Amino acid sequence: MTTEPGSRAPLAPGGTIGILGGGQLGRMLGMAAARLGLKAHIYSDEPDAPAFQVVSARTLADYGDTRALDAFADSCDVVTFEFENVPAATVAALAGRTPIFPGAHALAITQDRFDEKQFIAGLGLKTAPFTAVDCIGDAEKAFARGQAPAILKTRRLGYDGKGQAKVSNARDAVAAFRAFGQAPGILEGFVDFAFEASVVAARARDGYFAAYDPPENFHADGILRRSTVPSRLSAAQCEEAGNIARRIAEALDYVGVFAVELFVGRDGALLVNEIAPRVHNSGHWTLEACVTSQFEQHIRAVAGWLLGDPSRHSDAVMENLIGDEAADWQRLAAGGGALHLYGKSEIRPGRKMGHITRLTGPRADLI
Amino acid sequence: MTTEPGSRAPLAPGGTIGILGGGQLGRMLGMAAARLGLKAHIYSDEPDAPAFQVVSARTLADYGDTRALDAFADSCDVVTFEFENVPAATVAALAGRTPIFPGAHALAITQDRFDEKQFIAGLGLKTAPFTAVDCIGDAEKAFARGQAPAILKTRRLGYDGKGQAKVSNARDAVAAFRAFGQAPGILEGFVDFAFEASVVAARARDGYFAAYDPPENFHADGILRRSTVPSRLSAAQCEEAGNIARRIAEALDYVGVFAVELFVGRDGALLVNEIAPRVHNSGHWTLEACVTSQFEQHIRAVAGWLLGDPSRHSDAVMENLIGDEAADWQRLAAGGGALHLYGKSEIRPGRKMGHITRLTGPRADLI
Repeated sequence: MTTEPGSRAPLAPGGTIGILGGGQLGRMLGMAAARLGLKAHIYSDEPDAPAFQVVSARTLADYGDTRALDAFADSCDVVTFEFENVPAATVAALAGRTPIFPGAHALAITQDRFDEKQFIAGLGLKTAPFTAVDCIGDAEKAFARGQAPAILKTRRLGYDGKGQAKVSNARDAVAAFRAFGQAPGILEGFVDFAFEASVVAARARDGYFAAYDPPENFHADGILRRSTVPSRLSAAQCEEAGNIARRIAEALDYVGVFAVELFVGRDGALLVNEIAPRVHNSGHWTLEACVTSQFEQHIRAVAGWLLGDPSRHSDAVMENLIGDEAADWQRLAAGGGALHLYGKSEIRPGRKMGHITRLTGPRADLI
Repeated sequence: MTTEPGSRAPLAPGGTIGILGGGQLGRMLGMAAARLGLKAHIYSDEPDAPAFQVVSARTLADYGDTRALDAFADSCDVVTFEFENVPAATVAALAGRTPIFPGAHALAITQDRFDEKQFIAGLGLKTAPFTAVDCIGDAEKAFARGQAPAILKTRRLGYDGKGQAKVSNARDAVAAFRAFGQAPGILEGFVDFAFEASVVAARARDGYFAAYDPPENFHADGILRRSTVPSRLSAAQCEEAGNIARRIAEALDYVGVFAVELFVGRDGALLVNEIAPRVHNSGHWTLEACVTSQFEQHIRAVAGWLLGDPSRHSDAVMENLIGDEAADWQRLAAGGGALHLYGKSEIRPGRKMGHITRLTGPRADLI
């Protein structure tokens, strides 16, 4: 059953996938592994991690606990993760003992917004204009280039709009830089986009690539609220989005599912906003609208299986349940969609508590 | 979070559903509970029960272990089961401490093939001709009524064709009766049916009833091999099948999902073969082809939630993977369907190891 590091043999049913992180993504990955007859071992530093509820093998330990990491690695045939901010030292500790997908290189690049943007621009793909802000002088000078309004972001550890501030002039930029504790940052020119979209795609160990139909995404307060398929993207734009994802995956020698968030310009241009090296909230609708969900696809990829069919059989709208929206579960459960609640012990403002996917009809071009 | 026995309040997310039995049905029930934010506690007497892999609360104990049953009942808000042969004493022990759905009455009737047939006939529904065989004399006399060929079945504890023998005359019947250890039996007249079908349906605690589209089922060697929706049943027959299920559910004051296996006569008549008081193999296609699967529907019913939408969005074919067919997982995983492997530690002949569901197109009448 064991897959040696570097082995190309697929992991047989009964094998164990280690998952770093115990949130809703780890939970849905664990259930997808189970459906394929694979076991999941969840590693989390949170005692009430939602993913612990759906697996039989659990490690509750700090991400820096090398003894726990060693034991975890030794109990798994392959390791993956549900969040991109895994410390590099954690990845290094695991990688010496077990295969880990996606690898340290993809993580390192996507953990740093500036490195990520440089990588994307280096592929010839479009992004918002950006510049590094490493000191107060950078924050002042950034506006000399006429980038106003803009968004100052910390280079590392941001998510769901955290570590981001809209700034309109040099004084704002300096204030925001100070508010973020003078952490290295990136100033991104504000893009006046028509709408947001994303591509969720997978690359297998054998290099095979498969993209899902790109959803249109609506955010509020930096948090994804709704994903809709089909989007307003044209067929040509959908193909372009898939090609963007493929170029990124190949350049990173990526294995697993990832998402590329896109701004769709009013001129139709697709600008890459960011890369998430993991299953993604904007792909949750694949659970109901595709034969192979993004979670199963990721498990297939990291287990060395062939990818499944990503085609969409239905149109769908996925809505997140944020904070106390989940308290309304009785009404939501009666509403005809597929309700997912993540088993979180406490409702907190801004916390993703669940989602609901409504199938809105058979996919038009299949009819 | 606690639902008192008799309480009508729905079980809130975070509550615990106890499931007696740790096979693939318990496994898929546990995963459905998790999707709704409910916890599942599996009780099984098998150390490597497949359902143990997908839950965090597990009891490994004999079904007659009253201390373990008490602790199990006290840890659960409501209890259900994945197999119909739960000993009556087990149900009684649990029922005093926690709500249990479906209840003792439905179990008692469906555990005995003769009582079940009498119950069905008492509702005015059609069955194969049947007669009790309690002694060798009964076995001899049964053929006096011209029931040849026929099937002798033990009244209790049969499944997947076990405890059944085709007999053509009194001598065969006596031999089979002896071969079954002279266990009380039932002789059923052989029905020369056109095909087999089933209705999988649910009844909620509030009496609300919902049936899935009836699949057409193909058996070999007494084991279900394939279920197909839509079946060859006409719209009128589908409606009749639903009405049969509804009458049975109401007469049993049933709560949860159940299946009614049907013979479809060459004259179009629907004969009830048997009732399964649980989620059913012929309903596995609902995982992909419906927004609410039979597993979620059962969890909703026993948790006191409103039932979900049972409508089917796609046509589907579900095929069981029996014995070493599951060894072919690499080819199956590449075949484009939704592969389910049950995490069983050992392949054995005749053992249900998994299934695969292929969606064959959007449901015709939605187009």
